[in-house]
Amino acid sequence: MSSTFGQVFRIHTFGESHGGGVGVVIDGCPPCIPVSLEQIQQELDRRRPGQSDIVTPRNEADTAEILSGIHDGLTLGTPISIIVRNTDQRPGSYDEMAVKYRPSHADYTYDAKYGIRAPSGGGRASARETIGRVAAAAVARQVLDTLNPGIEILAWVKSVHDLNADVDPATVTAETIESNIVRTGDPAMVDVMIERIKTIRTDGNSIGGVIECVIRNCPPGLGEPIFDKLEADLAKAMLSIPATKGFEIGSGFAGTLLTGREHNDPFHMVDGKVRTTSNRSGGVQGGISNGEHILIRVAFKPTATIMTSQETVTSSGENTELSGKGRHDACVLPRAVPIVEAMATLVLTDHLLRQRCVAVVR
Amino acid sequence: MSSTFGQVFRIHTFGESHGGGVGVVIDGCPPCIPVSLEQIQQELDRRRPGQSDIVTPRNEADTAEILSGIHDGLTLGTPISIIVRNTDQRPGSYDEMAVKYRPSHADYTYDAKYGIRAPSGGGRASARETIGRVAAAAVARQVLDTLNPGIEILAWVKSVHDLNADVDPATVTAETIESNIVRTGDPAMVDVMIERIKTIRTDGNSIGGVIECVIRNCPPGLGEPIFDKLEADLAKAMLSIPATKGFEIGSGFAGTLLTGREHNDPFHMVDGKVRTTSNRSGGVQGGISNGEHILIRVAFKPTATIMTSQETVTSSGENTELSGKGRHDACVLPRAVPIVEAMATLVLTDHLLRQRCVAVVR
Amino acid sequence: MSSTFGQVFRIHTFGESHGGGVGVVIDGCPPCIPVSLEQIQQELDRRRPGQSDIVTPRNEADTAEILSGIHDGLTLGTPISIIVRNTDQRPGSYDEMAVKYRPSHADYTYDAKYGIRAPSGGGRASARETIGRVAAAAVARQVLDTLNPGIEILAWVKSVHDLNADVDPATVTAETIESNIVRTGDPAMVDVMIERIKTIRTDGNSIGGVIECVIRNCPPGLGEPIFDKLEADLAKAMLSIPATKGFEIGSGFAGTLLTGREHNDPFHMVDGKVRTTSNRSGGVQGGISNGEHILIRVAFKPTATIMTSQETVTSSGENTELSGKGRHDACVLPRAVPIVEAMATLVLTDHLLRQRCVAVVR
Amino acid sequence: MSSTFGQVFRIHTFGESHGGGVGVVIDGCPPCIPVSLEQIQQELDRRRPGQSDIVTPRNEADTAEILSGIHDGLTLGTPISIIVRNTDQRPGSYDEMAVKYRPSHADYTYDAKYGIRAPSGGGRASARETIGRVAAAAVARQVLDTLNPGIEILAWVKSVHDLNADVDPATVTAETIESNIVRTGDPAMVDVMIERIKTIRTDGNSIGGVIECVIRNCPPGLGEPIFDKLEADLAKAMLSIPATKGFEIGSGFAGTLLTGREHNDPFHMVDGKVRTTSNRSGGVQGGISNGEHILIRVAFKPTATIMTSQETVTSSGENTELSGKGRHDACVLPRAVPIVEAMATLVLTDHLLRQRCVAVVR
Repeated sequence: MSSTFGQVFRIHTFGESHGGGVGVVIDGCPPCIPVSLEQIQQELDRRRPGQSDIVTPRNEADTAEILSGIHDGLTLGTPISIIVRNTDQRPGSYDEMAVKYRPSHADYTYDAKYGIRAPSGGGRASARETIGRVAAAAVARQVLDTLNPGIEILAWVKSVHDLNADVDPATVTAETIESNIVRTGDPAMVDVMIERIKTIRTDGNSIGGVIECVIRNCPPGLGEPIFDKLEADLAKAMLSIPATKGFEIGSGFAGTLLTGREHNDPFHMVDGKVRTTSNRSGGVQGGISNGEHILIRVAFKPTATIMTSQETVTSSGENTELSGKGRHDACVLPRAVPIVEAMATLVLTDHLLRQRCVAVVR
Repeated sequence: MSSTFGQVFRIHTFGESHGGGVGVVIDGCPPCIPVSLEQIQQELDRRRPGQSDIVTPRNEADTAEILSGIHDGLTLGTPISIIVRNTDQRPGSYDEMAVKYRPSHADYTYDAKYGIRAPSGGGRASARETIGRVAAAAVARQVLDTLNPGIEILAWVKSVHDLNADVDPATVTAETIESNIVRTGDPAMVDVMIERIKTIRTDGNSIGGVIECVIRNCPPGLGEPIFDKLEADLAKAMLSIPATKGFEIGSGFAGTLLTGREHNDPFHMVDGKVRTTSNRSGGVQGGISNGEHILIRVAFKPTATIMTSQETVTSSGENTELSGKGRHDACVLPRAVPIVEAMATLVLTDHLLRQRCVAVVR
Repeated sequence: MSSTFGQVFRIHTFGESHGGGVGVVIDGCPPCIPVSLEQIQQELDRRRPGQSDIVTPRNEADTAEILSGIHDGLTLGTPISIIVRNTDQRPGSYDEMAVKYRPSHADYTYDAKYGIRAPSGGGRASARETIGRVAAAAVARQVLDTLNPGIEILAWVKSVHDLNADVDPATVTAETIESNIVRTGDPAMVDVMIERIKTIRTDGNSIGGVIECVIRNCPPGLGEPIFDKLEADLAKAMLSIPATKGFEIGSGFAGTLLTGREHNDPFHMVDGKVRTTSNRSGGVQGGISNGEHILIRVAFKPTATIMTSQETVTSSGENTELSGKGRHDACVLPRAVPIVEAMATLVLTDHLLRQRCVAVVR
Repeated sequence: MSSTFGQVFRIHTFGESHGGGVGVVIDGCPPCIPVSLEQIQQELDRRRPGQSDIVTPRNEADTAEILSGIHDGLTLGTPISIIVRNTDQRPGSYDEMAVKYRPSHADYTYDAKYGIRAPSGGGRASARETIGRVAAAAVARQVLDTLNPGIEILAWVKSVHDLNADVDPATVTAETIESNIVRTGDPAMVDVMIERIKTIRTDGNSIGGVIECVIRNCPPGLGEPIFDKLEADLAKAMLSIPATKGFEIGSGFAGTLLTGREHNDPFHMVDGKVRTTSNRSGGVQGGISNGEHILIRVAFKPTATIMTSQETVTSSGENTELSGKGRHDACVLPRAVPIVEAMATLVLTDHLLRQRCVAVVR
């Protein structure tokens, strides 16, 4: 039950960092949606290693192949399966790690859960698993564009370590974000963030930060009001991304410092539409979108892999030490931006299709 | 699809603030678990209105009736249904609200979604919906105690507005928390928090805060490693509680200010068990419990109902003003503590049963 | 997981023959559908005991109460909960049965599965469980009538023991079926069937038969083409009814005696629509409705309760004998007709709503 | 939602007869189960075309590749993905069929549902889809053998057209069934059945028949007692196989001719176990296995593809005629035997794992 996401637009991811490859099966995609392999590949390229000199130098081309569900550029309504072959595997780099549990990785917990573990690398806990999510979201993106044109979903690096970007969620553009390798929305912070990441990497250390994501032009009425609240499904989606430790919507934790009088969003009419004059709700009220910008933030801890000797234990229960090796990200945030967008896109697409089931007939 | 929670231990809640009542159907509960009506009622009493002079004075007895699934104090393995009749309804108090959208409530979004809305009060968005969750969790609590004795799940008020409690998650007790009407874990903060809530209420205003929750003695190996990570399901569970705006596990947002060297939790052996010397991971690694305390925090915004005139619009699209009436909580946190515990209990019970499906046979 | 049916229009039934009552929660019902308590009660009356002198004389009024989800005669889009209190319980009648396993009942298998069993009567295996299904289907019926007027779902007794009715599925009416207490569609067979049931009852014996069901005016395109084929979901729905042993669609088992040349249904155009000149497919091709009448048959074994001494064993493993007591149906078919209709209605409603999710936008 | 089967042992199939390939993702498989590629390939070989001179001469090697979830011959607990490349495609053979709806195929209904259709062959309705099911069941088979050794699942051809085999479900062996290309369990009927199939094929016609399947040594207690009754899930599983029109368990339709006195299965003790002296229930009572042989029958209609001119219509709504071409099975039953076994295996494995969730702790 563990690798399925979504209720109507359902994705099933599979694959480990070793073995034949990784991928995804998308079930529940409406038919007649235009989808091209290029669009999928483009999104995969945004998350792949080796794309710039501040991410891991592993060179994984991550070339997508569509096995089914799309013909002549249109979805058939049948399951869409996409695979990406594993290539640049260097099991040798991981030999020591097969025996010693890497601190703050999933080595020990996989052993505790399954009694067996992939012999090298992160196995299923590898970030390669997110390839399937990103590929599926590229398809979902086309569903949104076809069924409800105008919805924009943009994420950017809000902070790296203690460096904060100043970004206006209402106006920031994809061009601005993609114009720099950090993927921040604040041009003034690009150089200092790059500098920080490189310094940390040189030190064999790692850092985290916060990614912010906005959904603009979301129609009101999406989200199921009890357990599958839009913010609840977004929270789950974000906390399912490796290395995340926190989630906020709208005012978030800072909102606990306001009184109700300060926090409430007054309604008023604008061009015949119900709008709010402030947006501390973050675009969602009672679990359902209200038509304002949906604004969320996700906390990413520093990468667990560091090039320092650390205390740990072996799988046979002996205290030992382990020094990080291999080629990893000193800061995952630039590559996590497309993953945050992907998960937000999957949640929104699923809720858009769910809403069709129960839509009022007038 | 909106009112079901859980995969194996599944609950289905129902009911509005008006109408015959609210309740829950629990499906997937193992048989032969001892469950008493008293245990269920006791938990409902912890969340009911009118329990102290800092919560809403509405007097709802919230008396539970078990319709099925339990016989002679033992679960039968069949669906357990529990209902609580609605009583103290005063639709008159809400007349104006039926026409005017209350700011930061779900009135507008329900209309946008369904094209119809319960005529008075919060309808399905009412906090009464959480009665079903709390009743179900009281049953789940017994499942845990029977199948895996020793697991402790405790929540407490960590902050009210800008007042912070100092609580040690490793040692705080239910007795301490229940000994004060705020349900904080820090005796030194009780009076000042009560004072603050009363002042805010006198002013017709409202405040929020943070609830912290610990799961102690959780066995390692629980949680599904991809989408249904333990922290992802906890995040969804918490964000599904009305008025929540944020979720953290372990180091949370503050963890983004640390480097990997500072953040990683070294492993070492203790009494033949794999343990960590710090716990910035918050008891979960790679989505799976590692046996350390699971520690989460949930942000609650200030209650939307305030006794001040606010700008809003009518359901027919005219700008207007609305003054809050009725009997509401100036601060929901004391009553939200058992709800946070309930949702954490439901997530843990579900994952404990899920793990049985895939457990290794040795 | 055991008491939920449907993917979008989901029902959750609960309740045993003892205890407070039985009922259903319906989740996923679209809003603004007109539903009256009378319509629900009317369907329950069709399945209730004591309705005629060929069914069990137990006098259960089975009075429905709607607890939530409907206001002023319209669905709210929220879960609809309906309960029916248990009344005429006579645990004394069942004392012996609590210790001795009744042959061909579920007493032994419940013990084998759960290690515990309701102390008297059929518990969850009681036909009372179908009350929730019938109530839910009465709501579903209104969903169909609102979203897709004209769909007719009619079931009738096709055979009792070796007595066969001659019924034209294309023209049989509800009036004909409801005009006789057997609920057969062939007026010529009414008296002989009644006679047979009474004779068998007098003998303390029981009989079964076949119920046939037609869905007329089903739009083409319903049904999911792989596992959730329309006929697969209908088969599951029918085999989930107590006492059923077989299912056929269209040509059924008799179709295995035809060649492809005899069996294929040629297409031709009628009034601009694609139609078939024969209907051995039974209205479904490749799992998807083709617009022709959907025709199914369901085999019901003779009721397990008979008034004869039978060999059996006790729950402690001793051979013994048991004589049936209590008030049961010598032939369940008249009361099973509304249950077959109910399950067909639930399947069709669910697939109609499912189809809305993936419908092509033109 | 359409291509997923199972609740705990879940399979997701994908792929069309054209395109890159077909396959399956298995989620929920327990870890540490020994599984070899050879076992999977062996089952695929039993269903593949071209295996004998009474099935379609299409030569599809159907070579399986495992992409993930298995390492060094053991399952990892992670999703197992298996793909089979499409090879011997001859779109030319199907040109006419792309325009004209083949009678009793799914061409028209797919168009009605999706508004788009794979350009050649059966697309997703092709029997190639069952490759994923058979591959998944080969894995499930190993789960059963590991967790509950001794369960036997055997299917055989019970009838071809009007030719009936005489087979004892209690004693028939895999060796007997596999020793003949018809896969019947009655050696005396092999030659006459082969003769009949060849005669029908020479005539350009087709025939169907009945496949019988037994599950021996099933432990008592499997099956969920309401909607997911063991027989209900088996019925759905079987009716999801292409070309099926009926399902029976135990006494089936013939059981409707018996009285209760004749039909009931008396209990008696054998070697300290509760057993029945007859088995008209077919191994299931109240939806739950009782430890006796589970015996089912499945009706397969004659193959829709015939080499005769038939009336039909074009996708643009004109009456026309169509002559079958291509290489198809005159009788699908020999190749359907492993598919029936596969679906029965999937149902049983899923219910075995489901039962672990709710098993009583003693």
